[in-house]
Amino acid sequence: MAPRRLQVAVAGLGRMGKRHATNVLSRTPRAQLVAVFTPDEGEMSWAQQNLAQWGVKLYTDYDEMLKHAGLDAVVVATVTTVHAEQTIKAITADKHVLCEKPLSTSVEISQSVFDAAKAKPHLKVMCGFSRRFDASYRDAWERTDSGGIGRPSVFRSQTCDKLDPTGFFVQYSAFSGGIFVDCNIHDIDLALWFLGEDSVVKSVMAVGITAVQPELQKHKDVDNGVGVVEFYGGKIAYFYSSRMMASGQHDMTEIIGTEGKLTVNANPRDSLVDMWEPNGVRHEIPPHYYGRFEYAFVTEMNEFTDCCLNGTKLPFKLKGAVKAVKIGCALQESLITGTKIHFDETGRRIEQPKL
Amino acid sequence: MAPRRLQVAVAGLGRMGKRHATNVLSRTPRAQLVAVFTPDEGEMSWAQQNLAQWGVKLYTDYDEMLKHAGLDAVVVATVTTVHAEQTIKAITADKHVLCEKPLSTSVEISQSVFDAAKAKPHLKVMCGFSRRFDASYRDAWERTDSGGIGRPSVFRSQTCDKLDPTGFFVQYSAFSGGIFVDCNIHDIDLALWFLGEDSVVKSVMAVGITAVQPELQKHKDVDNGVGVVEFYGGKIAYFYSSRMMASGQHDMTEIIGTEGKLTVNANPRDSLVDMWEPNGVRHEIPPHYYGRFEYAFVTEMNEFTDCCLNGTKLPFKLKGAVKAVKIGCALQESLITGTKIHFDETGRRIEQPKL
Amino acid sequence: MAPRRLQVAVAGLGRMGKRHATNVLSRTPRAQLVAVFTPDEGEMSWAQQNLAQWGVKLYTDYDEMLKHAGLDAVVVATVTTVHAEQTIKAITADKHVLCEKPLSTSVEISQSVFDAAKAKPHLKVMCGFSRRFDASYRDAWERTDSGGIGRPSVFRSQTCDKLDPTGFFVQYSAFSGGIFVDCNIHDIDLALWFLGEDSVVKSVMAVGITAVQPELQKHKDVDNGVGVVEFYGGKIAYFYSSRMMASGQHDMTEIIGTEGKLTVNANPRDSLVDMWEPNGVRHEIPPHYYGRFEYAFVTEMNEFTDCCLNGTKLPFKLKGAVKAVKIGCALQESLITGTKIHFDETGRRIEQPKL
Amino acid sequence: MAPRRLQVAVAGLGRMGKRHATNVLSRTPRAQLVAVFTPDEGEMSWAQQNLAQWGVKLYTDYDEMLKHAGLDAVVVATVTTVHAEQTIKAITADKHVLCEKPLSTSVEISQSVFDAAKAKPHLKVMCGFSRRFDASYRDAWERTDSGGIGRPSVFRSQTCDKLDPTGFFVQYSAFSGGIFVDCNIHDIDLALWFLGEDSVVKSVMAVGITAVQPELQKHKDVDNGVGVVEFYGGKIAYFYSSRMMASGQHDMTEIIGTEGKLTVNANPRDSLVDMWEPNGVRHEIPPHYYGRFEYAFVTEMNEFTDCCLNGTKLPFKLKGAVKAVKIGCALQESLITGTKIHFDETGRRIEQPKL
Repeated sequence: MAPRRLQVAVAGLGRMGKRHATNVLSRTPRAQLVAVFTPDEGEMSWAQQNLAQWGVKLYTDYDEMLKHAGLDAVVVATVTTVHAEQTIKAITADKHVLCEKPLSTSVEISQSVFDAAKAKPHLKVMCGFSRRFDASYRDAWERTDSGGIGRPSVFRSQTCDKLDPTGFFVQYSAFSGGIFVDCNIHDIDLALWFLGEDSVVKSVMAVGITAVQPELQKHKDVDNGVGVVEFYGGKIAYFYSSRMMASGQHDMTEIIGTEGKLTVNANPRDSLVDMWEPNGVRHEIPPHYYGRFEYAFVTEMNEFTDCCLNGTKLPFKLKGAVKAVKIGCALQESLITGTKIHFDETGRRIEQPKL
Repeated sequence: MAPRRLQVAVAGLGRMGKRHATNVLSRTPRAQLVAVFTPDEGEMSWAQQNLAQWGVKLYTDYDEMLKHAGLDAVVVATVTTVHAEQTIKAITADKHVLCEKPLSTSVEISQSVFDAAKAKPHLKVMCGFSRRFDASYRDAWERTDSGGIGRPSVFRSQTCDKLDPTGFFVQYSAFSGGIFVDCNIHDIDLALWFLGEDSVVKSVMAVGITAVQPELQKHKDVDNGVGVVEFYGGKIAYFYSSRMMASGQHDMTEIIGTEGKLTVNANPRDSLVDMWEPNGVRHEIPPHYYGRFEYAFVTEMNEFTDCCLNGTKLPFKLKGAVKAVKIGCALQESLITGTKIHFDETGRRIEQPKL
Repeated sequence: MAPRRLQVAVAGLGRMGKRHATNVLSRTPRAQLVAVFTPDEGEMSWAQQNLAQWGVKLYTDYDEMLKHAGLDAVVVATVTTVHAEQTIKAITADKHVLCEKPLSTSVEISQSVFDAAKAKPHLKVMCGFSRRFDASYRDAWERTDSGGIGRPSVFRSQTCDKLDPTGFFVQYSAFSGGIFVDCNIHDIDLALWFLGEDSVVKSVMAVGITAVQPELQKHKDVDNGVGVVEFYGGKIAYFYSSRMMASGQHDMTEIIGTEGKLTVNANPRDSLVDMWEPNGVRHEIPPHYYGRFEYAFVTEMNEFTDCCLNGTKLPFKLKGAVKAVKIGCALQESLITGTKIHFDETGRRIEQPKL
Repeated sequence: MAPRRLQVAVAGLGRMGKRHATNVLSRTPRAQLVAVFTPDEGEMSWAQQNLAQWGVKLYTDYDEMLKHAGLDAVVVATVTTVHAEQTIKAITADKHVLCEKPLSTSVEISQSVFDAAKAKPHLKVMCGFSRRFDASYRDAWERTDSGGIGRPSVFRSQTCDKLDPTGFFVQYSAFSGGIFVDCNIHDIDLALWFLGEDSVVKSVMAVGITAVQPELQKHKDVDNGVGVVEFYGGKIAYFYSSRMMASGQHDMTEIIGTEGKLTVNANPRDSLVDMWEPNGVRHEIPPHYYGRFEYAFVTEMNEFTDCCLNGTKLPFKLKGAVKAVKIGCALQESLITGTKIHFDETGRRIEQPKL
């Protein structure tokens, strides 16, 4: 007899929700997609055509979905503004949760998710930092962890989206938490991973411009941002995010140690084809985030499922997700106020730099 | 109710058989692995541990397996010497077949598979030219097909295996058909794809050496081979195969047209990590064929399944598999005899070159 | 009869001085090396062996050298601390001057060089921003200038030296002006070139660490620095400098515009050789600055010579050299004080950020 | 007093002649350009404008030029058809000679040059295999020679010209000796260098097509050729040449040994700039041979000069130039006759392959 599979529901069927649902359905052998929730008609219609035939129950009410008989785990892939609320509800209903990043754009609310999870240590509650599951980042991590570059000291990472001339990003910005929370949250999480989860922030400073979408200013957001985070103990992370890449998505990372350096995806490409044309040699790069990280999402779902079924430890802690939001919000604040923000070794804000 | 899934059996659980079985089991949503066959104890033991719990029936007799109730399709992944026999048996039993390449190392036997398939046009019989399903080759093909490089004229392709010092290749060579049939069969198939399936061979010539494994000479084989195939109509394909790559697997292709050139995998890499070390900048490359083509195999199984279920056309014809073996065997003969072999426009051998 | 050649003297025969002398001697057809000055015995000995036979007069007194009959131009390649003084003396003596960067580590002294030059408009006085003569930077500049990337908006540039475990950089740091003035001065100059010479600085912020050479702290310097410069009008430049690159020198630049991006030397290499070895594919990178910019220095000397002989305009203005020092010094100050420094549109310092 | 400089004349001021003359004039410190010869009015006009002012004597008669007082050495850069005659005349007049490749398109005439040189061992007579002076090829050679790739066994090399739609190559082909003699002569010379100058040819085979310039057929030439040379002792070299590269010049080489592989210029580029554009990431490649090998020619002239002045050994032997022509001519013959050509261990032709 086939082993029991994790009974999973997916909440939200937007761009990422559809992908998560499909991944649970057909690329996660130990999981079974049993339910989905969406308040959106278009999304529901997609579910009727693509999921219903596989015995997936469709819900328009999140609370009802949580009561689905036998449900083990919930993937929260709704809009950021309800991530925290739905995650906490699922925890309360005794479900494992994989919540899309960020937990919230608010530090306090993110903390409340952490507190809820802490109260139920038998549940697996994970923030969807998909890059943690990417084979290349893991390869880089193993090399770093085994001393391959000496002591990691300077960390550079960027998340750059392809220019979307439709104005999507302007609307999106109203709720995204701003570019440092929305885009660079991944880079911040990676910085904590590679420089040490317990790294203590000494200062943050960010600047930004609206080069192509001045309308972003009404949401106090930018389309290009540069942020610098200084940690106690002689470590620096700096970030770049952009909404105007001409060629496509370019997310990359550089980890500089005292004895060597690693880069991850310094030279992006969409396929292995090079085109030798009259005006030179050319290759394409992925247009979207999913083109780069598709298999990381598949791995994420499979490992989350394994941890839930086996009762083993998740590959990283939820605490880091709160910390990443905290840093992202501080960068966003620095961007808006034009000031550098300082912290002491205990994490408290101070007025003057600590020399 | 969930749609009916294709009931699939896998014959042979060696390196590729295990992968095919796993892909049917958990990466091909529309297929169901219902049976496997292997005469090998070690492989059977693997099946007991990995497949039995999912309700897969294990057979030690191929003919019995063919009688499995409800079976729709067979994947033939046994040793090359029985590919043809098992494929014909499956056809006779009215099953769809995906047969690993080559159909046979003999042109006549390959032809007999083709004849058997031709007699049952309702069945899908496909030779596993996995590269045909690779996203990068498909990208290159679309660019070529849409005129992106003008008229494809010169084709270069190589299959290079990582050096295996265990002597595996020597034993393997006894039955592999030789390096041009075993390795370059993929490149030959690609040449026919890109230069035209109906291209008529004008001449073939091959040379080779045993640089690291002189024992190959007892099987009239080599560890490095260069072959040139001239086609009527002004087209050339040339091939390189090697069993002694230091860094890992390197399969690549170059399609040169009158207005441009495409390369596929000219610069192989295993992950997106670059290592900046005291002696330079380094990256690793996949050690094995599967590291390069893993997802092509997954696509292959899914598309084969779709064609069987939907009754649609396979993406390429079985006839080409016979032709590829024919060219591979001619190259192998040229290697052994030291001569160039000439053909007329009808495919008949001639003594003198056609000028 | 051969045309008259520019009569050139080189002051200082350290690492760069030797190269300049050699370049004037044998790679600058329209120039003639007539004199050199060095107060150093080792350098003088080198000159006796390598220059004397070509009729070059050797001086141990700079002022004497300036009186050399027929002398047209002086290349100042001595230590940074005397750049300004020697340049001003040469100007006073009515000589053209090519002065190595920076003019001085002091803004005021740099300004005094500019003032001296301004008083003698018939003289060509140039700061040796060698990258301005590099073919790749020029190619990038032409593409930028012709609108190839839209409006250049974000500029990233780095100067990274190979780790030198001898402690050279610690001693050197006593007089270098600090890492932002010494290393990033090139990147700052490039930023002004690509973002506009008249760009007005809005803020500067820098952080740094001593990852491998803690002794640098006694000179208030670091071995890894990150600096961010914000300009009025929606432009950002950010810089990285390091003294601990494992693989070799890596100076690179990225110019991000509203419609595209250019990178210069993103993937450095020393030769065109790739090594395919058991642990991957490797290439080496130049160990030193000169390995990357050798031909830029040759072009620099030839173009400087042409401008002097033809009375044509130098390719860039001396004013920018003062501005670059000003920005470098502000970054260095920000590094030391831990604060962000703000300026108003007229260039005056202000206490609060301008929002 | 300045040391005596080698008094050099350049014969022929076509594309390469102009470059050689300029290199002697201004990039070869120990040489002095004293005379040039050209029978062509346009070239003479160029010389009057560019060389006369530097005291260079201009000749329209080669024999007269040879009598120029004090002349030490001649660079023969005229059309291939007179290379041998002029070189022999110069040798007879007791001059050192640097003769552009090939010595001749005829094996016998090439041999006569060798014989003439052999009779005057005090003279330096060199064939201009410019790639021998290229820093990257030298780097590859040192790595090969020091055992870095084990025993070099398979050699692949190509010379690919940018498509020239003017029909230049058709006219040129009348005297070039054909694509294997004209283009691949460099690759053949490299093969002998890397596989061993004393390697004995076992067989040669070539095929070719006229993909873009069918008019080449009247000169029995092709615009794309593939050639394979088998050597006794288990070594293979294979070559590709093309006149229809869309992107520019691409000359590259791959040396495959029993323990590793080296590539030289596998990924050509013209500058260090990458362009990130809406349709991908692009870089340009050099349009012409000189763009790739400019500095090799400068090194060639300097080293030739040093050998003449110092009486030291040239970096490679003239004998190899005869051998390269011999192999090139055999490939060309194989192309034309459609046959594979066999040799015994003494270099004599045989009818049947030696097994």
